[in-house]
Amino acid sequence: MISIIPATEAHADAVWQIFREVIAAGDAYVFEADTSRETFLAYWFAAYVYVAIEGDQVLGSYIVKANHPGRGSHVANASYMVASAARGKGIGGLMCEHSLAEAKSRGFRAMQFNIVVSTNVAAVALWKKHGFAIAGTLPGAFRHETSGYVDALVMFRDLADIGSL
Amino acid sequence: MISIIPATEAHADAVWQIFREVIAAGDAYVFEADTSRETFLAYWFAAYVYVAIEGDQVLGSYIVKANHPGRGSHVANASYMVASAARGKGIGGLMCEHSLAEAKSRGFRAMQFNIVVSTNVAAVALWKKHGFAIAGTLPGAFRHETSGYVDALVMFRDLADIGSL
Repeated sequence: MISIIPATEAHADAVWQIFREVIAAGDAYVFEADTSRETFLAYWFAAYVYVAIEGDQVLGSYIVKANHPGRGSHVANASYMVASAARGKGIGGLMCEHSLAEAKSRGFRAMQFNIVVSTNVAAVALWKKHGFAIAGTLPGAFRHETSGYVDALVMFRDLADIGSL
Repeated sequence: MISIIPATEAHADAVWQIFREVIAAGDAYVFEADTSRETFLAYWFAAYVYVAIEGDQVLGSYIVKANHPGRGSHVANASYMVASAARGKGIGGLMCEHSLAEAKSRGFRAMQFNIVVSTNVAAVALWKKHGFAIAGTLPGAFRHETSGYVDALVMFRDLADIGSL
């Protein structure tokens, strides 16, 4: 059974390994393949961090935080990643659903993704399935490892219809 | 004569005073009125910083930086502010023009504003005049001091037509 729990220091190594897999392809995340463990963990663990686990296996992780300070802080931002060996099990969707409820519980009114890679059609479809709309298209805003400069999407979702955890 | 030059430590006090004026209204910047000098200066001076000066008076300041790390780092982000006593002199436009050339010189391919307050019609018109298009609308993403939650705009401009400094 897969469960989603707050991450602790004990998960840092597993989360770092998943991140390395994710960034190696250069097709979904802004971080480059040479990003250091220290840089990544400082970034990831500066937010509210969760892991999807099955037994003692970490299958994925996500973070949620305010997208802006102050007058923009009622909009959440989240990032998700799934271990390559665990793809196709619906973990991305589970984490997305969890993150929406978590964001709602923390008082956020909406959730925004700032740079969804347009060529990552599976992700775009998943976010749409979970209620996100494309708020805008940023021409050539992502430097894709194999396709060069590709469009990125800003996706947005109101949380009015989400129940708290 | 107004000139735009790189900011130094010597400009920090003047820039802080302008920032305080700008955030007091709560209608244009995400920072709240109680933002500390330390927080502001750490944020502002983490980017490339410029000031618009006339004699020894600082009339405005702007910053330019990468909007994202790594695979999103070819898109610049900029923020501008003008002293209340110096408004209506075209300083915002001068700084915008300068920032576009500066961003181009530093190798950026485009410039993006992440959270332009939709009710700030003068700013929206100014950015449009300088070639920015509305890439998307974020419903209720800005908590305006007097109007409550208002839409924010993502604005984007390619730098292909901009000459280097």
